[in-house]
Amino acid sequence: MTTVEQAEQIILAQIKDYGTEALAFEQALGRVLAEDIKADRNLPPFNRVTMDGIAIDFDAIVKGIRTFKIKATQAAGDQPVDIDANEECVEIMTGAALSPTVNAVIRYEDLEINNGLAKLLAPEVKHGQNIHFKGTDKRSGDIVAPSNQVISPAVISLLASVGKANVLVKKMPRVMIISSGDELVEVAATPSDYQIRKSNNYTVKAALKLHGLDADMMHIPDDPDVTRKQIETCLQNYDVILLSGGISMGKFDYIPQALQDAQVTRLFHKVQQRPGKPFWFGKHDNGALVFAFPGNPVATFMCLHRYVLPWLDATLSLPPKEHVYALLDRDFTFAPPLKYFLQIKLKSTPMGTLAAQPVEGNGSGDFANLADTDAFMELPPDRDEFKKGEVFRVWKF
Amino acid sequence: MTTVEQAEQIILAQIKDYGTEALAFEQALGRVLAEDIKADRNLPPFNRVTMDGIAIDFDAIVKGIRTFKIKATQAAGDQPVDIDANEECVEIMTGAALSPTVNAVIRYEDLEINNGLAKLLAPEVKHGQNIHFKGTDKRSGDIVAPSNQVISPAVISLLASVGKANVLVKKMPRVMIISSGDELVEVAATPSDYQIRKSNNYTVKAALKLHGLDADMMHIPDDPDVTRKQIETCLQNYDVILLSGGISMGKFDYIPQALQDAQVTRLFHKVQQRPGKPFWFGKHDNGALVFAFPGNPVATFMCLHRYVLPWLDATLSLPPKEHVYALLDRDFTFAPPLKYFLQIKLKSTPMGTLAAQPVEGNGSGDFANLADTDAFMELPPDRDEFKKGEVFRVWKF
Repeated sequence: MTTVEQAEQIILAQIKDYGTEALAFEQALGRVLAEDIKADRNLPPFNRVTMDGIAIDFDAIVKGIRTFKIKATQAAGDQPVDIDANEECVEIMTGAALSPTVNAVIRYEDLEINNGLAKLLAPEVKHGQNIHFKGTDKRSGDIVAPSNQVISPAVISLLASVGKANVLVKKMPRVMIISSGDELVEVAATPSDYQIRKSNNYTVKAALKLHGLDADMMHIPDDPDVTRKQIETCLQNYDVILLSGGISMGKFDYIPQALQDAQVTRLFHKVQQRPGKPFWFGKHDNGALVFAFPGNPVATFMCLHRYVLPWLDATLSLPPKEHVYALLDRDFTFAPPLKYFLQIKLKSTPMGTLAAQPVEGNGSGDFANLADTDAFMELPPDRDEFKKGEVFRVWKF
Repeated sequence: MTTVEQAEQIILAQIKDYGTEALAFEQALGRVLAEDIKADRNLPPFNRVTMDGIAIDFDAIVKGIRTFKIKATQAAGDQPVDIDANEECVEIMTGAALSPTVNAVIRYEDLEINNGLAKLLAPEVKHGQNIHFKGTDKRSGDIVAPSNQVISPAVISLLASVGKANVLVKKMPRVMIISSGDELVEVAATPSDYQIRKSNNYTVKAALKLHGLDADMMHIPDDPDVTRKQIETCLQNYDVILLSGGISMGKFDYIPQALQDAQVTRLFHKVQQRPGKPFWFGKHDNGALVFAFPGNPVATFMCLHRYVLPWLDATLSLPPKEHVYALLDRDFTFAPPLKYFLQIKLKSTPMGTLAAQPVEGNGSGDFANLADTDAFMELPPDRDEFKKGEVFRVWKF
C-alpha cells in the first residue's frame, strides 16, 4: 500500500505553473506575489522629521546659540524651507522634508516659544536627532518584497508605499468540487428518512476559500451517462477535480468507470493511513488532476490539509510551510499498521511548548467533533503506544 | 502614564452589542455565530451503511447460515428494503439507510457473489458491524454548534448538515479608517520630493479584512473646517474611528480640536509602551469609539493587534484568545521603562517549543522589516535584560 510519504511525493511531483494575472493591489490580499517589488525611490524619500518642533543647524549648538528666530513654519508636504543663518530655525511638523540647511530637530516639549522666538529649555541636543534619514530603510531599486510570498497586510503596505497600484499575482488553478449520489439533497431541502443533506462539498469550498481559492461545485446524480458527460466536461474546464465519495466498489458508483473512460490515469489508490485509506489520485492526459477522497468528511478534511494545500502552495511557488510540532498531553494507543491522523486541540503553555490534547470522535467521521479541534497530529504507523510528552508533527487547520 | 494593562482594561470596558443579521450559510465563513445550532433530527438520521456489500440479520450468523439470497439491491437514498427470512440479504451501498430487519453489513471483499447468491468467505461477523447507528453523533434537538464562535469550515459543515441555509451572525461594528495630512498622495500618484504615498490606512484595512471586517477609508486634508465637518460626520455614521497620525502637538493637526469640539472624551493618552507611546483613546457621547494611533506604521500595526482586535473579539462575544508563549532564542536588551513589543519571527522546534527570533528594524517604523516577522513579543517594562530561553507572551499577526 502507498505510504503517506509516497503519496505526498507523487502529488508534489504534479506541480504546474498556472501563470500570473494583474490585480489592483487592494484586491491582492492573501494572493501570492508573482513579481519582486522594488523601491521606486529611497525610503524614506527625504530626511524626514519625526517630532513636531523646530529644525536648526547643529553648528548653532556648537556655537552656544540657545534662542532661534522662527523664519517660517513648514507643514508635512510643504516644500522644504532653507535657513540663512545659525540663529534662524524653521518651525516644522512631523513628516516634513528637511532642507539641507538644517540637521537637528528639537521637539516642542523642550522649547519655549514667544514672539517669533524659540528658546531651548536646556535639552541635550544631538546632531541628526528626530530625523529619519533618506534611504535608511531602503535605497531606490532595492527589493522591498520578493516574489513568491503570500500578500499580507505588511506587504500591502509596501505595495502602497512604492506606488504598485497594480500587482502581478499567481493565477489560482481552477478547482471543481464534485459531490455525487442520489441520497444527497440540498441544504435548504427537507430530506426523506433515508436521505441526507450535502455538506462535505461546502466544507471543502470553505477551507479552500480560507486559502484564497474560489472553487466551483457540481453534483453528479447516480446515472452512468450523466456521470460520464459531467466528468468529461470538468476535465476540459478545470485544472483540479476534488471528489468526495463515489470511488468505491459500490454498484452505483459510476465515477471510477467515467474516469477510466476519460483517460484519467491512476497514480495511487489506497494510502497507509486512517482516516482516508481509500484516497485515490490520478491525472488526465491534459494535465488535469483528480483527488478522490473517501466519503467520510473527516477523512476528506484531513486529506485536503495534508495533501491538497501543500500541493497548492508548491504549485504557487510558495516555500514549503515550516513543520509544526507539539507534545502529546496524554498517552494514546492506536494499533493498526497505519499512520494515524489524530484530531487534537492545541494549547500554548506558559513553558513555551505547544501541547496537543487528543479529541476523539466515534470514528464515524463526526464533524461535530472536528469543530472542537484545530489540528491533526501525525502518528507513525510502526508503533502502537504513544506516550504523554512525546513530540509529533501536527497539521493545523 | 497609562500602563498596557490599564489601557487594555479601559478599552475592554467599552464593549457593545451591535446586534445580529441573517446570512446565507455559505456567506457566513469567518463571521461569528449568533445562535445555537441544533440538530433538526438525529445524526446520523438512520442506521447508515458504511461499506458496500450485503446487509443481513445477525441471527443468521448465529444459526450458521453462510450463503444468502440477494432479495434486492438498495442504493444510498433508496427506501430501505426489508428481508423476510434469515437466508435473505440486501445488496447495499455505503450511505444507504438500513431496514430494521437487518443489523450487520458484510463488505464485498469478504464475499463471493454468483447467480443472485452471496457466499461468505469466512470473515468474522459481528452484530452491528459496518453500521453507523442512528443518533450516535447527535440526538435531534442537541446543540451541534454553540453560538459565540467563529464560523470555520467545520461549522459550515454542521450548518449544512442540519439544514441551516440561513444563519444568524453578529453584526460587525461600522469602522472608519482616517488618514490625514497634505503630505500624503494616492498610491497611483507620483509624489513630489517632499510627499509620500498613503499606505498605513490600507494596511489597517487589510488586517481587519483578515478578521472578517470591511472597514471604510477617508482622507482628511489639513484644513480645520473640513476636519471638523468630516470628524462629525464619521462620529454620526460609524461605531469606531481609527486614526493613524494626526494626534500630536503639530500646528496643522486639527484633529484633536475637532474631536474636542465634537464632544469626544479622552479615556487615555500615552501608554507605557514602545512602539505606540502616543496612543490615544476616546469615546463620543453617542458611544462611538476613537482609537488614535501614532503615525509610525509599526506602532499602528501593534496597537491594532494588541488592543483593537481583542476589543473586536470581546464585542462580538468571542471568548478571549488563548495566550501564546514563546522562548526568546537570543539575549535581548531594552533599557527604557516601557513595555517593549519586539518584532519576532516564530519557529516551531522539533522539541515541541515555539522559538522567537528577534528581527529588529531601525526603530523608524520600517514596514519592510515587519513583512519578515509574524508576531510581537511583549517584554515587561521593569527589566532591561532578556535572556535566551526565557518565555514571554507573543501576539501573532
